[in-house]
Amino acid sequence: MTDTSTATRILLDSRPVGWPTPENFRIEEVALPELEAGQVRVRNEFLSVDPYMRGRMSDARSYVAPYALGAQITGGAIGRVVASRVDGMPEGSVVLHQHGWSDVVQGDAATFRIVPDIPGLPLSVRLHVLGMTGMTAYVGLTRIAALREGETVFISGAAGAVGTAAGQIARHLGAGRVIGSAGTPEKVALLTQKYGYDAGFDYHDGDVRELLAQAAPEGIDVFFDNVGGDHLQAALASFRDGGRAALCGAISSYNTTDRAAGPDNMANLITRGLTLRGFTLGDHLDLSAEFQQRMTGWFEDGGIVYDETIVDGIENTVQAFLDMMRGGNIGKMLVRI
Amino acid sequence: MTDTSTATRILLDSRPVGWPTPENFRIEEVALPELEAGQVRVRNEFLSVDPYMRGRMSDARSYVAPYALGAQITGGAIGRVVASRVDGMPEGSVVLHQHGWSDVVQGDAATFRIVPDIPGLPLSVRLHVLGMTGMTAYVGLTRIAALREGETVFISGAAGAVGTAAGQIARHLGAGRVIGSAGTPEKVALLTQKYGYDAGFDYHDGDVRELLAQAAPEGIDVFFDNVGGDHLQAALASFRDGGRAALCGAISSYNTTDRAAGPDNMANLITRGLTLRGFTLGDHLDLSAEFQQRMTGWFEDGGIVYDETIVDGIENTVQAFLDMMRGGNIGKMLVRI
Repeated sequence: MTDTSTATRILLDSRPVGWPTPENFRIEEVALPELEAGQVRVRNEFLSVDPYMRGRMSDARSYVAPYALGAQITGGAIGRVVASRVDGMPEGSVVLHQHGWSDVVQGDAATFRIVPDIPGLPLSVRLHVLGMTGMTAYVGLTRIAALREGETVFISGAAGAVGTAAGQIARHLGAGRVIGSAGTPEKVALLTQKYGYDAGFDYHDGDVRELLAQAAPEGIDVFFDNVGGDHLQAALASFRDGGRAALCGAISSYNTTDRAAGPDNMANLITRGLTLRGFTLGDHLDLSAEFQQRMTGWFEDGGIVYDETIVDGIENTVQAFLDMMRGGNIGKMLVRI
Repeated sequence: MTDTSTATRILLDSRPVGWPTPENFRIEEVALPELEAGQVRVRNEFLSVDPYMRGRMSDARSYVAPYALGAQITGGAIGRVVASRVDGMPEGSVVLHQHGWSDVVQGDAATFRIVPDIPGLPLSVRLHVLGMTGMTAYVGLTRIAALREGETVFISGAAGAVGTAAGQIARHLGAGRVIGSAGTPEKVALLTQKYGYDAGFDYHDGDVRELLAQAAPEGIDVFFDNVGGDHLQAALASFRDGGRAALCGAISSYNTTDRAAGPDNMANLITRGLTLRGFTLGDHLDLSAEFQQRMTGWFEDGGIVYDETIVDGIENTVQAFLDMMRGGNIGKMLVRI
C-alpha cells in the first residue's frame, strides 16, 4: 500500500513567454492535511496534459482564469478514492476530477465524479475519447459545424487527441469524405490506416492551400480546426458555398509572442456565405448526456479506436506537456502515475 | 411623351484593376427591337448603384456571375411600363427589376415585378430602405447575427445605405445601444442626430480598435460589417463572450489589388465563443414577406428615415458609382433618369 499522506505536485513557477520551458515549473512534495468531513483523498492513475493549458499559463483574458503563480497546475485526471469521509463515495471508487498535476489529491467530494468502470477499457479513456476530448470533437461537429450526411469534412491536427476522435465521429455521423492534416508521415499514415480518414496530408509538404485543394478537389463543407493559421486560410479557400468551420484550437499560435496576421481571404466568408464559429466545451455541457450515450454506443459496436502516448511518473509531467505542445504524441498524451 | 424606341445604356468595356475609372465603361445608344408577345418596355425612373457591383466587374468566382465584357451593367432599377404585350402588367404599372443601367429596358414580363405605389413616398425607396438594401440590413441583424433585445450593436459604414437602415432596424428590434462608424464628421453627426445611433465615430480619427473601445467601453454583442479590414479586427477585440458578426460587405478591400491580411486576433473567436457569418441576400429571399411586413409597419409609424444622394441623368451613372465607392454619398446613391 502506497503512502498517500504526502503528495508530489507540480506548480507554475513563472509565466512562459513564447514556448514554455521546464524552468517555468516547480515540483514539490507536501504533507497533506487530515481529511475533513465531506472530503475524499484520491490517488491518481492518469493525468491529462492538454493544449488549452498553455493559455492558462499566460496572464491574459480567456475563457478560464489563468493559473496563479506558485499554485498547482489543475486539469483533468482520474484515480481511485483511497480515503473517504463522505457517504456515497467509498474507498475504491473510480473518480474523474479537475484537481490536476499531483499524484495524490484531496478535496470536497462534490469536486469529484464517480464514473462507471467499463470492462475491457482502461480508466484513461475517460480523459480522452469518452471524456472532454471526445466530447469536444462531438460538439464541434454537431452543434457548432452542423455536419450533415454526405458532406466533406476537413480536420486539422487530425492525429491529435481531438482529431482522431473527430475523424471517427464524422464517419459515424455520415460524412461523405473525411480529410485530415498532420505533422509527420507516420501520423498521416495512421489517419487512413486506423482512424477512418479517406485522405490525409503532411502540412510540411508544401502550401497548405494546395495540399488541401489536392486532397479535396471538389471543396469542403465542414472544417474542424485544431491548428489555426495557414490551415484556416486553406479551408477558406476550399470551402463550398455555405461551409461551416468549428474553431476549436489554434495550437499553431499558442507559443508565438507576435500576433499572427489572419487569413488573407476573409472576403470568401461573404461571397460564399460561410460561418466561422469558435467554441470551448464549457459552454456546451448540456450535450454531455447525449454525447455519452452516442459515444458509448459507437464504442460498444467496436467503431471507435484510439491511441495513447503514455509517459510514466509524475516527475515527467512537464516534459509530457512540452512534448505534446511540439506534436510528439500520437493520440492522447497522458501521464501514468 | 419621351421617345422610348431607343435606349441609352452603359456597358462594361474593360475589367477594372484596383479602383475603377470612367475608361472601364462605355455609353451607347441603341434602337430597341419591336416588343414581342409576353414582353414589356419600361422607362426607368431610378437606377441603383451598389458596392456589390464592383465584384461583378472582376472576373473572379463570386456569388453572382461576373458582368460580361461589352455587355450592359445589370442591377436594381425601378420605372413605369410604357408599352406592354402581356396581360396583367399594363402601361403605367410601377415595376422593379434587375435590368440595370439603361434609361429604357424591355424583356419578358416575368423579369419585372409590379410594386404598389406608397402614398407620400418616392418610388426610389423600393431601391433602398424598402428594397434589397433594407432587407440586407434586416436579414443581417435577425437571421445572421440573431440580435436580442438589450444587446450592444456596432455597425460599420453606418452612414451608407445599408448602415442607415441597419441602425434604425436595430433600434426597432430592441437593441440596447447602437454604435456606428463613418468616414466624415458630417456623416458621424447624422448618425446620432437623424438615424437613432447612440454613438458614432469617424474611423479616420485614430486606431479603429481604440475608437470602438471608447464608444463601447463594455464591449459589443453584435457587429454588422459593411467595411471589413480594421473594422473587423476592432470588433473582434471588443466582442463580449458569445458575440456574433454579420459580414455583409468589405468595401475597404474591393479596390485593392493585393490581398489584405486578416485580423490578427482571430484567436478571440475561440476564447470568447464568437461567430462570424458572411451572407448575401440571395440566400435569404424566404424572408422577403416578413421583411416587407415589418418594415412597412415601422415606416407607417414614422419610425424610418432615410437620405438619398441623387445624381441626374443616365450619362452620370458611372460617376455616381465611382463617387459611391469612395464614400461620396450619404444614404442611398441613386441615378434619376
